[in-house]
Amino acid sequence: MTENGLGHRERVLNVDTMNPNVKRIEYAVRGPIVQRAVQIEKELKEGVKKPFTEVIKANIGDAHAMGQKPITFFRQVIALCVYPDLLEDEKFPEDAKNRARRILQACGGGSLGAYSASSGIEVIRQDVAKYIEKRDGGIPSNPDNIYLSTGASDAIATMLKLLTSGEGKTRTGVMISIPQYPLYSAALAELAAVQISYYLDEDKCWSLDVNELRRAVKAAREHCNPRALCIINPGNPTGQVQSRQCIENVIRFAAEEHLFLMADEVYQDNVYMEGCQFHSFKKVLFEMGSEYSSVVELASFHSTSKCYMGECGFRGGYMEVINMDPEVKLQLTKLVSVRLCPSIPGQALLDLVVNHPQPDEPSYATFIKERTANLHILSEKAKMTEQVLNTVPGIHCNPVQGAMYTFPRLTLPEKAINAAKEKEQAPDMFYCMKLLEETGICLVPGSGFGQRDGTYHFRMTILPATEKLKIVLEKIREFHKRFTEEFS
Amino acid sequence: MTENGLGHRERVLNVDTMNPNVKRIEYAVRGPIVQRAVQIEKELKEGVKKPFTEVIKANIGDAHAMGQKPITFFRQVIALCVYPDLLEDEKFPEDAKNRARRILQACGGGSLGAYSASSGIEVIRQDVAKYIEKRDGGIPSNPDNIYLSTGASDAIATMLKLLTSGEGKTRTGVMISIPQYPLYSAALAELAAVQISYYLDEDKCWSLDVNELRRAVKAAREHCNPRALCIINPGNPTGQVQSRQCIENVIRFAAEEHLFLMADEVYQDNVYMEGCQFHSFKKVLFEMGSEYSSVVELASFHSTSKCYMGECGFRGGYMEVINMDPEVKLQLTKLVSVRLCPSIPGQALLDLVVNHPQPDEPSYATFIKERTANLHILSEKAKMTEQVLNTVPGIHCNPVQGAMYTFPRLTLPEKAINAAKEKEQAPDMFYCMKLLEETGICLVPGSGFGQRDGTYHFRMTILPATEKLKIVLEKIREFHKRFTEEFS
Repeated sequence: MTENGLGHRERVLNVDTMNPNVKRIEYAVRGPIVQRAVQIEKELKEGVKKPFTEVIKANIGDAHAMGQKPITFFRQVIALCVYPDLLEDEKFPEDAKNRARRILQACGGGSLGAYSASSGIEVIRQDVAKYIEKRDGGIPSNPDNIYLSTGASDAIATMLKLLTSGEGKTRTGVMISIPQYPLYSAALAELAAVQISYYLDEDKCWSLDVNELRRAVKAAREHCNPRALCIINPGNPTGQVQSRQCIENVIRFAAEEHLFLMADEVYQDNVYMEGCQFHSFKKVLFEMGSEYSSVVELASFHSTSKCYMGECGFRGGYMEVINMDPEVKLQLTKLVSVRLCPSIPGQALLDLVVNHPQPDEPSYATFIKERTANLHILSEKAKMTEQVLNTVPGIHCNPVQGAMYTFPRLTLPEKAINAAKEKEQAPDMFYCMKLLEETGICLVPGSGFGQRDGTYHFRMTILPATEKLKIVLEKIREFHKRFTEEFS
Repeated sequence: MTENGLGHRERVLNVDTMNPNVKRIEYAVRGPIVQRAVQIEKELKEGVKKPFTEVIKANIGDAHAMGQKPITFFRQVIALCVYPDLLEDEKFPEDAKNRARRILQACGGGSLGAYSASSGIEVIRQDVAKYIEKRDGGIPSNPDNIYLSTGASDAIATMLKLLTSGEGKTRTGVMISIPQYPLYSAALAELAAVQISYYLDEDKCWSLDVNELRRAVKAAREHCNPRALCIINPGNPTGQVQSRQCIENVIRFAAEEHLFLMADEVYQDNVYMEGCQFHSFKKVLFEMGSEYSSVVELASFHSTSKCYMGECGFRGGYMEVINMDPEVKLQLTKLVSVRLCPSIPGQALLDLVVNHPQPDEPSYATFIKERTANLHILSEKAKMTEQVLNTVPGIHCNPVQGAMYTFPRLTLPEKAINAAKEKEQAPDMFYCMKLLEETGICLVPGSGFGQRDGTYHFRMTILPATEKLKIVLEKIREFHKRFTEEFS
């Protein structure tokens, strides 16, 4: 014991005393494999010899990090907003200046440095509503239903928080797809809400079967109170695009089972496959008539981080709520006000996404060229990824219809599965870790997203630049062959 | 009932079924009075006649909204980062360009649009550590203990989340000052943690008495498990600056009572009163010797939103943790990774705050001039606010030693208190609402921050431009006189 009597006692905050819900969280997209990748990068810098010279991070949908260039117009407007002296600069086009002036006028004191209303700058919420109306063929959107957010993750976690209540058998259950994006399981773990898994059908291009939803909700009603159904469309990590018919079935199911619908539509521009088309849940809901559109509660989410812009770092996003109880909306506004407001540069960037240059404006041609090019390249890479991976014996890959990922299935030799068990690793974690150590390619094991027992996958983004993606796919091909031989 | 049988049933999500913890949250800084202020602004725009022509929002520490200008250097660097074509522009000084190049080099793909590590960009965490070392006279700071955040609120809420566990009598209790900044009570309500109130001593310039901490923790141990002590220094809403001796006493108390210390130091540059000085908890802890510095767990918080810069909209901030369990640090990293990363423009701005122009750099003179001017004006306004308010019979105002607020005490006539009760309003809410309707001045009632029973206050920022602040103070003086007469 020391003089003050404090001695060698336990810490106030340790793993035994900390929040147990936080301990239960898993988030594979930035999990152990990514931490090891960062370590390897440091080792490379320090001159440690490896069988490769760089780590290629295909673990996360981070377009700019993979070399995609920002949309010129977007960055011009934000620079003008940040440093308004540039409004005098002739190098900047007039439409960019007009947008910047309009945004600044809507900011407190004409500065991006002021707080906004907690639900976001009103002018921007109006622009979002107009964008949604146009996207959905004229179905009205009310700015009062729009809440700007810090990326989509923030709004999704906030909605799940609002929905969680009860204890034991009355505890809120939330239906999420398996495979899923692990934000959902993480948020539910943190809230101690019940995760209700429904499986996507890998044999049918990861499509959603309402019978599987029925099975899942029926089983869940035995032990919790199912209150919400989350859909990711286009799919993450599975890259499927839902048909209009499927969305109708899901909405009907939600209505019948009295579930709040959450539609994660952050990849709404990322549709590559011919014959596939993005249908927003909002649009389909309203086209189904007022019997549905007047009762089904829906929140849909969008973000500046994906699509053709890939501006993840700005943390911009919005949520639109439909049929939300007005008193709950007040509670929602109060809840978000505690964090003051989403980042204003992120709000400004979102405004440009929903209110991009028009045909009569000077920046239009360049904007369209850049947007088309970005989407075209993604589309090519989606096809290439599917084609190359499907030439590898032991890898089966569904078409990448949309989003930014492939989630191929791996056939792993029994010996590899046993070797993984010995290391207390999931077999696909064992596989991905070995791939990382041998090739420098960083993928996320399927076990981080959930998958049917006894199946193994990885998630890979299609974002590396075309030439690099070719190399990545080639290296995966070689590795898989080697791996299969080693463990046969 | 309609054809599909959905009929007029209750919503899935309504005030009875929603998260009860969220319902319990109160956040006065953006509460009913601010909502009414926004409404009045709309009415003014629509031409409704009022006894005033504009609403003056002195309810929130939002410097730019009140006319404070951004620091030129900061905005130049951010504009360069946002739109790197400007790096070729001769109008921008070399030191701004160097900073921008350094930040971009640390970003994925050289773009602010890429995600960063979840704890923030490494170079910036290193700069933060250097800043802290310099501020604290050389006491070492480790970049691995720095977590960048979305403003300070985000990091504070995250720490409270980590600390919360147990049920019933073992539920985590957290000590917060009364008056407090309502982020704390809101976060505790959301987590269903127990708020342990300790009262600041209004008669001694809102100073903190350790005997009061002892009383509070002793009473709390009867019904919960006190695990953390939160301090705001300089104080919000009370504007006091803690003495070195007081901080030592608090640290000794935390050590004795085995409490995790949370030091909210976002106003560290906002010290106006002669004889007052900012002492960081970290520095005092280390100066107390290893008996304390090796055991007391501390998290301290800073932000880009206050001080001389007032860049609230960028949502930049950081937290430094001392003596945190390494396993808990891993859990913390995992927890923040679910939200991917703080806004990159916010991180970049924070970097400039902690790594501002140096004497040998071309932007130094302007930077120092702007910073000094901002702090000087705040200091003048702090003195003016105290002086004018103390000339009003029935208002008593402690010196505004630091931060950005005054929290004067109101003597309200019995009749006014009864009139408020009839309206089911707190008496100071009744007062502030009437002030708003009659003068357009928006303040926050003391009841939103907590106060001793039977006392009444309001919080007012000192941020309106000097000429406007004079008018505001004059109008409050007149109003208070009128109000006292009306209810006497």
